[in-house]
Amino acid sequence: MSDRNRFQPLDAGAVPRFAGASTFMRLSLARAEEVDLALVGVPFDGGTTNRTGARHGPREVRNQSSLCRRVHHASLASPFDLMRVADCGDAPVNPVDKEESLDGIATFFGEIAEAGAVPLTVGGDHLVTLPILRGLHKGRPRALVHFDAHTDTYDEIFGTRYNHGTPFRRAVEEGLLDPKRMIQIGLRGAISHAANYDWAREAGIRLVFIEELRERGIDDVMAEARALVGTDETYVSFDIDVIDPAFAPGTGTPEIGGVTSFEAQRLVRHLAGLHIVGADIVEVSPPLDGTGVTALTAATLMFELLCVMAEGMAARNGTS
Amino acid sequence: MSDRNRFQPLDAGAVPRFAGASTFMRLSLARAEEVDLALVGVPFDGGTTNRTGARHGPREVRNQSSLCRRVHHASLASPFDLMRVADCGDAPVNPVDKEESLDGIATFFGEIAEAGAVPLTVGGDHLVTLPILRGLHKGRPRALVHFDAHTDTYDEIFGTRYNHGTPFRRAVEEGLLDPKRMIQIGLRGAISHAANYDWAREAGIRLVFIEELRERGIDDVMAEARALVGTDETYVSFDIDVIDPAFAPGTGTPEIGGVTSFEAQRLVRHLAGLHIVGADIVEVSPPLDGTGVTALTAATLMFELLCVMAEGMAARNGTS
Amino acid sequence: MSDRNRFQPLDAGAVPRFAGASTFMRLSLARAEEVDLALVGVPFDGGTTNRTGARHGPREVRNQSSLCRRVHHASLASPFDLMRVADCGDAPVNPVDKEESLDGIATFFGEIAEAGAVPLTVGGDHLVTLPILRGLHKGRPRALVHFDAHTDTYDEIFGTRYNHGTPFRRAVEEGLLDPKRMIQIGLRGAISHAANYDWAREAGIRLVFIEELRERGIDDVMAEARALVGTDETYVSFDIDVIDPAFAPGTGTPEIGGVTSFEAQRLVRHLAGLHIVGADIVEVSPPLDGTGVTALTAATLMFELLCVMAEGMAARNGTS
Amino acid sequence: MSDRNRFQPLDAGAVPRFAGASTFMRLSLARAEEVDLALVGVPFDGGTTNRTGARHGPREVRNQSSLCRRVHHASLASPFDLMRVADCGDAPVNPVDKEESLDGIATFFGEIAEAGAVPLTVGGDHLVTLPILRGLHKGRPRALVHFDAHTDTYDEIFGTRYNHGTPFRRAVEEGLLDPKRMIQIGLRGAISHAANYDWAREAGIRLVFIEELRERGIDDVMAEARALVGTDETYVSFDIDVIDPAFAPGTGTPEIGGVTSFEAQRLVRHLAGLHIVGADIVEVSPPLDGTGVTALTAATLMFELLCVMAEGMAARNGTS
Amino acid sequence: MSDRNRFQPLDAGAVPRFAGASTFMRLSLARAEEVDLALVGVPFDGGTTNRTGARHGPREVRNQSSLCRRVHHASLASPFDLMRVADCGDAPVNPVDKEESLDGIATFFGEIAEAGAVPLTVGGDHLVTLPILRGLHKGRPRALVHFDAHTDTYDEIFGTRYNHGTPFRRAVEEGLLDPKRMIQIGLRGAISHAANYDWAREAGIRLVFIEELRERGIDDVMAEARALVGTDETYVSFDIDVIDPAFAPGTGTPEIGGVTSFEAQRLVRHLAGLHIVGADIVEVSPPLDGTGVTALTAATLMFELLCVMAEGMAARNGTS
Amino acid sequence: MSDRNRFQPLDAGAVPRFAGASTFMRLSLARAEEVDLALVGVPFDGGTTNRTGARHGPREVRNQSSLCRRVHHASLASPFDLMRVADCGDAPVNPVDKEESLDGIATFFGEIAEAGAVPLTVGGDHLVTLPILRGLHKGRPRALVHFDAHTDTYDEIFGTRYNHGTPFRRAVEEGLLDPKRMIQIGLRGAISHAANYDWAREAGIRLVFIEELRERGIDDVMAEARALVGTDETYVSFDIDVIDPAFAPGTGTPEIGGVTSFEAQRLVRHLAGLHIVGADIVEVSPPLDGTGVTALTAATLMFELLCVMAEGMAARNGTS
Repeated sequence: MSDRNRFQPLDAGAVPRFAGASTFMRLSLARAEEVDLALVGVPFDGGTTNRTGARHGPREVRNQSSLCRRVHHASLASPFDLMRVADCGDAPVNPVDKEESLDGIATFFGEIAEAGAVPLTVGGDHLVTLPILRGLHKGRPRALVHFDAHTDTYDEIFGTRYNHGTPFRRAVEEGLLDPKRMIQIGLRGAISHAANYDWAREAGIRLVFIEELRERGIDDVMAEARALVGTDETYVSFDIDVIDPAFAPGTGTPEIGGVTSFEAQRLVRHLAGLHIVGADIVEVSPPLDGTGVTALTAATLMFELLCVMAEGMAARNGTS
Repeated sequence: MSDRNRFQPLDAGAVPRFAGASTFMRLSLARAEEVDLALVGVPFDGGTTNRTGARHGPREVRNQSSLCRRVHHASLASPFDLMRVADCGDAPVNPVDKEESLDGIATFFGEIAEAGAVPLTVGGDHLVTLPILRGLHKGRPRALVHFDAHTDTYDEIFGTRYNHGTPFRRAVEEGLLDPKRMIQIGLRGAISHAANYDWAREAGIRLVFIEELRERGIDDVMAEARALVGTDETYVSFDIDVIDPAFAPGTGTPEIGGVTSFEAQRLVRHLAGLHIVGADIVEVSPPLDGTGVTALTAATLMFELLCVMAEGMAARNGTS
Repeated sequence: MSDRNRFQPLDAGAVPRFAGASTFMRLSLARAEEVDLALVGVPFDGGTTNRTGARHGPREVRNQSSLCRRVHHASLASPFDLMRVADCGDAPVNPVDKEESLDGIATFFGEIAEAGAVPLTVGGDHLVTLPILRGLHKGRPRALVHFDAHTDTYDEIFGTRYNHGTPFRRAVEEGLLDPKRMIQIGLRGAISHAANYDWAREAGIRLVFIEELRERGIDDVMAEARALVGTDETYVSFDIDVIDPAFAPGTGTPEIGGVTSFEAQRLVRHLAGLHIVGADIVEVSPPLDGTGVTALTAATLMFELLCVMAEGMAARNGTS
Repeated sequence: MSDRNRFQPLDAGAVPRFAGASTFMRLSLARAEEVDLALVGVPFDGGTTNRTGARHGPREVRNQSSLCRRVHHASLASPFDLMRVADCGDAPVNPVDKEESLDGIATFFGEIAEAGAVPLTVGGDHLVTLPILRGLHKGRPRALVHFDAHTDTYDEIFGTRYNHGTPFRRAVEEGLLDPKRMIQIGLRGAISHAANYDWAREAGIRLVFIEELRERGIDDVMAEARALVGTDETYVSFDIDVIDPAFAPGTGTPEIGGVTSFEAQRLVRHLAGLHIVGADIVEVSPPLDGTGVTALTAATLMFELLCVMAEGMAARNGTS
Repeated sequence: MSDRNRFQPLDAGAVPRFAGASTFMRLSLARAEEVDLALVGVPFDGGTTNRTGARHGPREVRNQSSLCRRVHHASLASPFDLMRVADCGDAPVNPVDKEESLDGIATFFGEIAEAGAVPLTVGGDHLVTLPILRGLHKGRPRALVHFDAHTDTYDEIFGTRYNHGTPFRRAVEEGLLDPKRMIQIGLRGAISHAANYDWAREAGIRLVFIEELRERGIDDVMAEARALVGTDETYVSFDIDVIDPAFAPGTGTPEIGGVTSFEAQRLVRHLAGLHIVGADIVEVSPPLDGTGVTALTAATLMFELLCVMAEGMAARNGTS
Repeated sequence: MSDRNRFQPLDAGAVPRFAGASTFMRLSLARAEEVDLALVGVPFDGGTTNRTGARHGPREVRNQSSLCRRVHHASLASPFDLMRVADCGDAPVNPVDKEESLDGIATFFGEIAEAGAVPLTVGGDHLVTLPILRGLHKGRPRALVHFDAHTDTYDEIFGTRYNHGTPFRRAVEEGLLDPKRMIQIGLRGAISHAANYDWAREAGIRLVFIEELRERGIDDVMAEARALVGTDETYVSFDIDVIDPAFAPGTGTPEIGGVTSFEAQRLVRHLAGLHIVGADIVEVSPPLDGTGVTALTAATLMFELLCVMAEGMAARNGTS
């Protein structure tokens, strides 16, 4: 196989989409050092306090990503022609040992960063973003664009500081993220206490509730987001529950009244031009997903992210 | 347990949401005389002419309401701090005797009214609104804000005057509702005869079709609704089928082209300030609900209603 | 049975919607020569390259169409009072012989045209539109209004020229459609090669992507569509996947970010006044449809189309 | 169509099983006076005290019966060559009026009996057996072979004497059945009171629990059943819940530990030679049936019953 | 409410099975000190190495147990007349802290034992049996009758000694169980290493594979089991996966070729006369359970166990 | 990776079963020339006359086979220690060209045979067995042990000689199979014409209906099967529909009254000692499979077949 074909999806007009073992976007399996963009899974949901199942996310997103194609219909971005992309497998996790998993995930992403690849990840619950950030950390806090129904900035739940409601508080405390350059978009849903948003606000994180998003419109809010993070190294975290459960029912903490999948695509497209050092899509829980539409949505948004990331890398490399 | 804790939801950071027997919003079971706002079920669908299942609505909404929390993220309303709220159980029904059920339901709500509590009910099919109104009746017709795909003002179906397509005609005839202060919002779906809307119009009921709702916008229509009912005692009836079946598939008579769950939340929030003497959410049919999203939507809207009702009561009491 | 009753749906206030064998909209079975508008099925999915199941579309749409009624709530169109409408059965197909099926379908629609009836069809996959057009062909290319996520104008897939990705290219080549009067609305989804849209554009087909549709709005785009086809004989093809999978999950090639069912209804209503010589709704795949909402959506859109077609026929006949 | 073809199923090697509107076993629709054996539906579940849905039984059994064929593989019985068989539609029912439904069903079956046809019915809940027996009654109590998990001989439930737990008590009281020639097979499941079986035993009904059935074996028990009813006119009632819910989950009152579908087939085959004046399969509830296997099981058992009934009629007629 | 009624299920002929909040068998909620037999849940699945969901077991078994009744149809055991039985709620668990959960569960069961009640538990995954045994421990190892597809006597999985594959090894090591009086019935399924059974055999545990069970028959094997444990204090652990997935699909580690639900009932009935100090049913995973049949099976077996346990207690008390 | 590890499943105590892209039994991907036993898929269902979906069989069986382990619990067969086994991918198919698919499949299996590997295949519909046999053909007709509800020896359906109801007639006609050494086990289900079995009987094929299988018992029938094929080169074809739909609902032509999965395992184990030159499991249709149990059953039976085949090869090689 020529090197070019090595990093191309299988030709769906020759090999049916339902054939063969499924990898992300029907790409080859490869090691991180071979690629520019590494599609990886983190099948861990040990931080979930209520409805689990996100551990099955990577496999089912792989299955549904067999419906992906090569060229973006609107931007005509063609990521596989710009960058070497492959399925680099799953981070090592231990389903019955949270600490070991956090360590293993961090090490795995450290190696990806070391290899010079940029990871695009499918979780897992939102706790996995913490060890990803640890692994990718290079001494300076990153900016963050975060799509979610929840801030995930609790201090503790059930007396533990490491669960899927706390990763962004920990990441700020650990110096992995700079709260002044963090924006959380799509927030909604009742809260446990009126003080729940206080820490985030005091830390300087920009909170954009669904009401503001709808009132100002996506273009305006995303312009603000782009201005906030500028050309800094930015991580993107996409919790599938920012999307309304009509469009993405397969998630552990659904909140009605969310964005549509059309809006979700536009949110992601507005990331064009940012300096993205990693991105994730988390909280896809296949056992809760009736017809597979949530995993399909995740796979499609993964392609949207891939287009933005590959074009950004090419632009920074002067290769596009 | 202190009286304060008695009317608080279980702490979801200490007792997992999936633990224990499920009550509405994880509240205590209590008698109506102990509370200000009574969350109750009416598990009756004997008025359903086609697809049944709404009898299972209260139980499944209880299950899904374990995802509810305490404070509204946008209004910061905190109903459990304002009012005593509890799960007051289900009205007595006889699944094979419609007349006995209508009587039992009316008596049950009469006792709630007698006890001084305001009921927030989960049905059951829409016929249950009739005996609820009978039970709550105090001599003067109430105003009504009614969200629904259908007017439910038929005279007869299958030769019977008491079924889920007739409650509002009966209620007007019985003097329970004042048609001049009734508004029905979200209407759509083909009809059996062009004359189907005639009675309602002649009676003076304000019909707002989905087309008008979308054209004028929710703010405008709801301003009209608030103006129409003013400060009169008002009942609110929310048929889940006003929502599009993509968002709420689990219902007996789905009509495509409905409001989104985001819009549904806004419709309810616009009820703030009204003098609500009772409210219901009906026609949730769990056997027809693939992933539970309909019951979740009902539970969330129940919380939205609760916020509006508790704040209204507090304002009228001068306690907020 | 009087002739009038012969072409009326069963009375749902006398015969329950769940009773009896299901036909389209609970109409009688009849031969094409008895009717003005023939509701027919084409249960064939042998052109499907990935996920099949559309062969089961006609039966399940018949089942769900038991929820249809007689009069359009907004336009008050009353198709059964305007035209003789019936269920004229399914086209003959051979599930294991594509060529024989294409021939059988074309012959079947040729006979409908011969009988003077206008067909409103439920597929089947999109390949079935090709033999329908062949059967209805009368010497001059027709105009086309086409709702779809995909152009279906590939030249070949898997080395075959006849599959569900190629019908409109074949139809143009065969002189069945005039590309200059073809408009495709709702396009989206990644493509295999950047050149995928070239043929259609060069042929003169008007491509309206979802982004343009949302930006300009439905009214504006549909005004253009009506202007494009004018009073020419026009065929309407509605691929259910133009609708977002939240609203219509049961289809073989879902693409997120599509139109809502509310928007779909408006798209169809804008066809009022066109000279429609046939219409279809295709790619409904019941095995992939969790709660039946896709078939219900197809049945409702079938009624929307029926209203537009019956009123158009009546207007042209001077009978309305 | 020749008279012979009129009463034959569609040829599944020419018209696919998924094509066309579905009737029982893909037979023609006909009036009772045209046939020897009338396949009919009774879509009524207004006697159901807990989980409804059996009203949808006839339609879904029609759908699944498209998998039926013509000749029994073991007995080589060929019912469509022996007798005129057709789908005679559904009994008239009123979903919101139990009394009217009981009357309508009885009249419908009275007309079938009057026409000289023998009905093979799909319910509906078990209450429908009572009006069927009333309609078929000819002055002398019939014998009964009854397969069920429950005796359905309660006196009252919820204070009503007519519900799906009481039909056989009413039928004995009304002189429709002779308790001394009644046998109930497959009984199991906890009961409300130890005295629940007393009435049946005192009336002389033979109760065969699942434990006895398994210990003695099907051959032995069915020999007893045949001996009990002899050559008397016998009605057969098959409640699908006699089958284990692994094989038939789609029913309102499932009881684990039931017979397998293989055993169910054998139970039915042992009815060969009896003088069957009518038979039913009841309590199939499609909304509770995950994959359609319950309706498929009912359709297959319907064919098993049809073989036994057609051969019995032919033998009594001297035509086989 | 009289004390007698306090410990009776709701009357299903007066209060429908679908009404009200669901408790185990529609019993009252009570404290352990009020009852003889405590029905409890342990909603914990943090020991699960692959497919989770058993944390939702107690709630869904409560829901399905609304189908339970009062008197055993075969033994005529009437547990609620013999003993005070109630729903005593769920053990405290921490979904993101395994150690804390193990401690909390053990304490909870210690208090039940202290109160003099005998617990009948619904899990949770199989790890929960370990802290239950710890809580019930009274200084002398208990005998065990264990139904399962797996021995659950691994030493470590994923480097942890506490997960759902290890509880019985730990329990033996901790002196909670006496391996010489342990019998495991229904074992099957491929294993990781041929040595997997060595530890159990060397410890003296009696392993009965499904092949032996089927060959010798249930009566013979259970006679051996009864002889093995004699009149010693015995714990009973029933892993739902001993049952074939056709009957009980909703479990994390299904193994085909298991016992039927009929056989499962017989296995439990053979426990009559044993001195049972506690029992559990574990590994019911509702998210994996299509139609609820697994939770229904668990609820029914819970009733079977309750009958055996209540009769045994009464016999030992001399009260039956 | 050492050569030994190259052909071992991933260690499920170190890498969770839900992690990574799924291959058959979590084995490596390899070329046929590297292995002794090649696990392959044939994702083709273009021969299916009614309900499709078997094209998705290989992928879903790969997913479910992540639950497989290494050593047979009863025979202690350890196939991965005996033989080199790997996932050799899927045969090339064209979903819209039957003839090309038949050719491609035959060529693929010809190459496997050429490479000296023995294939164990997951279909696909039953038509795929024909090109497999063509590819494996070496000049002399093979013996066949065939488990199925249907004989699949039709001459034509829908006028075509190549569909999933005809492969064994074609294979006999083409000299690929010797009818005198063919046995078909588990037959049942109504037939289209009494003459349907005539060709098979006249050709000398041994037909064992389910009634005979149950009467004589599995041991006796399989002894006859072993005697019939002796030490000849034998192909094994396992149609999943030989199993009852309670155990394996996900198939296109289910027939109630089939074997249990326990019986299916025993049928396969009785193949020990035969000279198996290839085997397949076909007609697994994931879109029709509610909870995945059918694919799990196929995966488990694939392991049962693998054990028998690996031990047989080892014995013939003198290496076991």
